Amino acid sequence: MTPFQVTILGCGSAMPTTYRNPTSQLIEVNNKLFMIDCGEGTQLQMRKYKARMSKLHSIFISHLHGDHVFGLPGLLSTLSLMGHTGEINIYAHKELEYFLTSFMKYYGTQLNYKINHFHLDSKNNSVIYENKSIEISSFPLKHRVDTNGFVIAEKDAPLHMKGDMIDFYRIPFSKIKEIKDGADFITEDGRVIDNKLLTTLPNPPRKYAYCSDTAYSTKIIPYIKGADVLYHEATFEEADKARAKKTYHSTAKQAAEIAKQSEVKKLIVGHYSSRYRELNQLHSEAKSIFENTVLAFEGMKIDI
Amino acid sequence: MTPFQVTILGCGSAMPTTYRNPTSQLIEVNNKLFMIDCGEGTQLQMRKYKARMSKLHSIFISHLHGDHVFGLPGLLSTLSLMGHTGEINIYAHKELEYFLTSFMKYYGTQLNYKINHFHLDSKNNSVIYENKSIEISSFPLKHRVDTNGFVIAEKDAPLHMKGDMIDFYRIPFSKIKEIKDGADFITEDGRVIDNKLLTTLPNPPRKYAYCSDTAYSTKIIPYIKGADVLYHEATFEEADKARAKKTYHSTAKQAAEIAKQSEVKKLIVGHYSSRYRELNQLHSEAKSIFENTVLAFEGMKIDI
Repeated sequence: MTPFQVTILGCGSAMPTTYRNPTSQLIEVNNKLFMIDCGEGTQLQMRKYKARMSKLHSIFISHLHGDHVFGLPGLLSTLSLMGHTGEINIYAHKELEYFLTSFMKYYGTQLNYKINHFHLDSKNNSVIYENKSIEISSFPLKHRVDTNGFVIAEKDAPLHMKGDMIDFYRIPFSKIKEIKDGADFITEDGRVIDNKLLTTLPNPPRKYAYCSDTAYSTKIIPYIKGADVLYHEATFEEADKARAKKTYHSTAKQAAEIAKQSEVKKLIVGHYSSRYRELNQLHSEAKSIFENTVLAFEGMKIDI
Repeated sequence: MTPFQVTILGCGSAMPTTYRNPTSQLIEVNNKLFMIDCGEGTQLQMRKYKARMSKLHSIFISHLHGDHVFGLPGLLSTLSLMGHTGEINIYAHKELEYFLTSFMKYYGTQLNYKINHFHLDSKNNSVIYENKSIEISSFPLKHRVDTNGFVIAEKDAPLHMKGDMIDFYRIPFSKIKEIKDGADFITEDGRVIDNKLLTTLPNPPRKYAYCSDTAYSTKIIPYIKGADVLYHEATFEEADKARAKKTYHSTAKQAAEIAKQSEVKKLIVGHYSSRYRELNQLHSEAKSIFENTVLAFEGMKIDI
């Protein structure tokens, strides 16, 4: 299997601490590097965890609160200093232009690559990137400002051709694509060879879902259903549930409830409030609802 | 003596590394906290080194290159989250408004304090802040964009009154100010008491000078002359002198040459290029010209 791996660069919340960085993560898939959110210090975290900046393909910004976006100017400048050329795609809400325009006005002339800013749709689910192998979509979350979650999913792969069968039945190259798509093979003398003899099933497509920041909302379930891994914010412990509601954040228990109802395989929680130094309570509250819950930490790598 | 202390929060240059943060430093003097420059991650460095954010009085930005300014949005937001009220003064070139305006447009409504932006004069030396005890001035440096250095200096203090002499000669309270300013005291029966009997000399006023970023320029000497401590950038070793010239930076030897000609007491060098992991060579080059040179490092505290 080709790598499909998430690296947590930061899983703190608005108030940074000495032990937690603001939100950012990297997703390596399809031999490309995608970033979701870019809090202050993200470029330093990339260095610390030896991420290959030159591979960065696109940046997805869930919403414009500072702890998800203030690392962008530094990262964009450093990419240029490092000789990045070509393009960088940024998927973010329209209002990022307030920020980008001023940055470009003073710093943009020095950049040796082009920034493409694609606007996120804060009302609807939509595919925002796709190629032959993967599809990335965004969907609305429930927060104080327009906020989107993201799903990065592999597409259904074709069947695997058995190499030895190609030789055995002398299958011409021109027939291989249709066999991979499920067709039987008919030999020169008219024998029908069942597709099952010629192929094996591909690996099932993998799916990663990201939901931060958001209040508890069952509306997101259809989008994240059945994900191999769900990252869901869990800013608060259950005792601070009222505060979670007021600030449009989730408790760990609520994150776990969403994971359970969405039938995901694994839940990663993060975006912890700076008030919690220890996370055991938060963790056990989530596990009481959804056993396969792990706590995000800086530098964590998760294979999807 | 009241504290007059510099804390180095970052002494790297444009390309951040895992072991050096971009430029920022704090100066505690006159029971106030001043910041010079604010590279990305500065607020985290403040936490790491236990600086008291609530004491922050003013921020001085030498120039608008990202490694001196990209930490500002995060710091300003966090100050507000922490409940800072009143005002924050920012002394920076006019063009900071490109940056501040966009920040204020999206984030400003949430701030519970006022930002005063004072424009630096990039052509002349000028006093930018003063009170009874201290004076802060700025002066032009020689860099690729408008850049200013800063001098933070105590004013001449009045003479110290000897407490026991007040009682002995029954000096009325109303006379004390003029005696502190140098006057003799005349007793009720007409005797003239020499001021020298009544007072001791105050501590000499202390002076700190900051020069980063800048090419070698003897024009700055009159401003920084006789400083107790000079912080001067030393981006390059002597072997990279041509590169220093081209990028309007200094070598360590050039920084030391300025220190020597300015007759300062101590030189701190910083703003090292990311190409140097080890700084021994850079240090010894500076020391060959000016012996009392120390290397800046993150977390360093210097008593002026």
